[in-house]
Amino acid sequence: MRFTHRTLSQRVRFASGDAAAALAEEVTALGASRVMVIAAAGKAEVARRVADGLPVAHWHHETAMHVPLPVAERARAAAREHRADALACVGGGSTTGLAKAVALTTGLPIVAVPTTYAGSEATDVWGLTDNGRKTTGADDRVLPRAIVYDATLTLTLPADLSAASGLNALAHCVDAMWGPRADPIDRALAGEGIRALRTGLPQVADDPAGLPGRELALYGAYLAAVAFASAGSGLHHKICHVLGGMFDLPHARTHAVVLPHVLAFNAPAAPDAEARIAAAFGTGTAIAGLDLLRVRLHAPTALRDLGMPEDGIAAAVRAVLGAVPANNPRPVTADDLTALLRAAWEGTEPR
Amino acid sequence: MRFTHRTLSQRVRFASGDAAAALAEEVTALGASRVMVIAAAGKAEVARRVADGLPVAHWHHETAMHVPLPVAERARAAAREHRADALACVGGGSTTGLAKAVALTTGLPIVAVPTTYAGSEATDVWGLTDNGRKTTGADDRVLPRAIVYDATLTLTLPADLSAASGLNALAHCVDAMWGPRADPIDRALAGEGIRALRTGLPQVADDPAGLPGRELALYGAYLAAVAFASAGSGLHHKICHVLGGMFDLPHARTHAVVLPHVLAFNAPAAPDAEARIAAAFGTGTAIAGLDLLRVRLHAPTALRDLGMPEDGIAAAVRAVLGAVPANNPRPVTADDLTALLRAAWEGTEPR
Repeated sequence: MRFTHRTLSQRVRFASGDAAAALAEEVTALGASRVMVIAAAGKAEVARRVADGLPVAHWHHETAMHVPLPVAERARAAAREHRADALACVGGGSTTGLAKAVALTTGLPIVAVPTTYAGSEATDVWGLTDNGRKTTGADDRVLPRAIVYDATLTLTLPADLSAASGLNALAHCVDAMWGPRADPIDRALAGEGIRALRTGLPQVADDPAGLPGRELALYGAYLAAVAFASAGSGLHHKICHVLGGMFDLPHARTHAVVLPHVLAFNAPAAPDAEARIAAAFGTGTAIAGLDLLRVRLHAPTALRDLGMPEDGIAAAVRAVLGAVPANNPRPVTADDLTALLRAAWEGTEPR
Repeated sequence: MRFTHRTLSQRVRFASGDAAAALAEEVTALGASRVMVIAAAGKAEVARRVADGLPVAHWHHETAMHVPLPVAERARAAAREHRADALACVGGGSTTGLAKAVALTTGLPIVAVPTTYAGSEATDVWGLTDNGRKTTGADDRVLPRAIVYDATLTLTLPADLSAASGLNALAHCVDAMWGPRADPIDRALAGEGIRALRTGLPQVADDPAGLPGRELALYGAYLAAVAFASAGSGLHHKICHVLGGMFDLPHARTHAVVLPHVLAFNAPAAPDAEARIAAAFGTGTAIAGLDLLRVRLHAPTALRDLGMPEDGIAAAVRAVLGAVPANNPRPVTADDLTALLRAAWEGTEPR
């Protein structure tokens, strides 16, 4: 047992139906009097309802996927112009990401109100895209001071998107078991995240308008993000990053397809992780638990169905080979990766 | 699901055999150049070895149980006099407590090197005793910035004391399941703590000189403290606090006797906690798991063997009744407490 774990300071509130009151309390606790509210145009209505009662200095509704630098610069300029002393963001990963971009240069504190299972609100990781090139980093300033989870705000997320976003969170949990900095604390949090997601996601699928499943999914996604940010990207996220960049595949669904193949590959060489994942699923083996959940959620099973060309496998193998984490539970050869990606492309049984 | 969880920022290192190097790195990271090292006189030798290589401005060896105010005042004066810019404490709860007392008024950052399973190093709780009266509080300034766990430093803790100290940590885990602010995150951390303690403590008992059990026990005690500080004192700690104050009973052993009786009383009304504790023990029921461990560790079973007078039961019941947490899983009557304390006093089967 040899590790260094850094726990980040944050307040987390679960307050279904009470986002407005909880957000107002958190903003008051910061002593803020000029809040810049960030929300996508499509979420402007929701944001106005949630930020009701805040001393709002500016409503900012220009957001974009992967936080393009010009979008970040305009948001930073708006924060200066309106003399904002705090940021409140209402939305998914792109919205939280924009608030982080503003915090990175201004130091303004963030209170996040997430509406998906992306998990960005629970990490100190920021990302910016400049001319199609993405830069990421970790900085204390971008970690939201507080998170307000209100499951009623996720009710409009359709069942299929909820499942995909939830499996993306599950991938955070699985990769947190063997990421480059993975430690027992990460594994414990990731195990609790799996327990919550495997219970909550089927409930969301069965009853998209019910709150208990939505609450569990948010809770699981939060723990998934905490564990993953601490452990760092493992083999699964390296593969998905390459596939996403090369073939412009849909993010969450790519994770859903690839995850069981990586789990089946690594699990035999990672008995502690395997046992923890199996216990969290409540099944005999980790892979059996993941299979049950995927079937239950009607998750996609083949990369070819997501638009990846067959002749892309070889190029992807070459790119992934250079990115395999040194501490992966077992060595990864080109043949291993070819077999893994071909199975994921065809949608054959993970083994 | 409705809760507010506050996560405290801290670096935690597990580095068996490498406390000196790890401590030096943490002190360097703080930018400190005048360290005040706090250790009991009996630990002076160990402290000198561990703090080897630090820029030490002052060695402070006056410590005392429950941190008497005059002892704290002299340590604070020493910190000022020697112009200390950081504190390093090497020892158990009293030593960490003294470092916290200095940090409380000076704001100096602490790096803690624990040698028992007390867990104080993982919390923002301080305590001071003035004329026999103990005052406690919580303050960000007293939370150590970093902890260095080196299991080799616990090898001198005798097996029986290790068991008692370990069961005290286990009591933190159990009470964290239903303390006044207990939330699912506390319960998950406490569950992981139980898993580590139930595995590690028997290993320490069987092989006091072996490291793996000692490491697991330290890891479990750390998680126990994090969860307990977040959840707050539940019924068990309220009872032990009263018994300790009234009859001057030995702290850790009192916990070992009382815990199964509180667990047996609360578990039927707390199914989630019961299931989590049972799963962590890997036994059919929570109480069965605790019983197995107590027998394995030859834990004491009767308060009368620890020196509590039989006629003290009635007075203890009255004192505890006024301190029962409002959120205890089930209501607690005077009759309930009388039955519970009589069973604990006699050492009869918890039920």
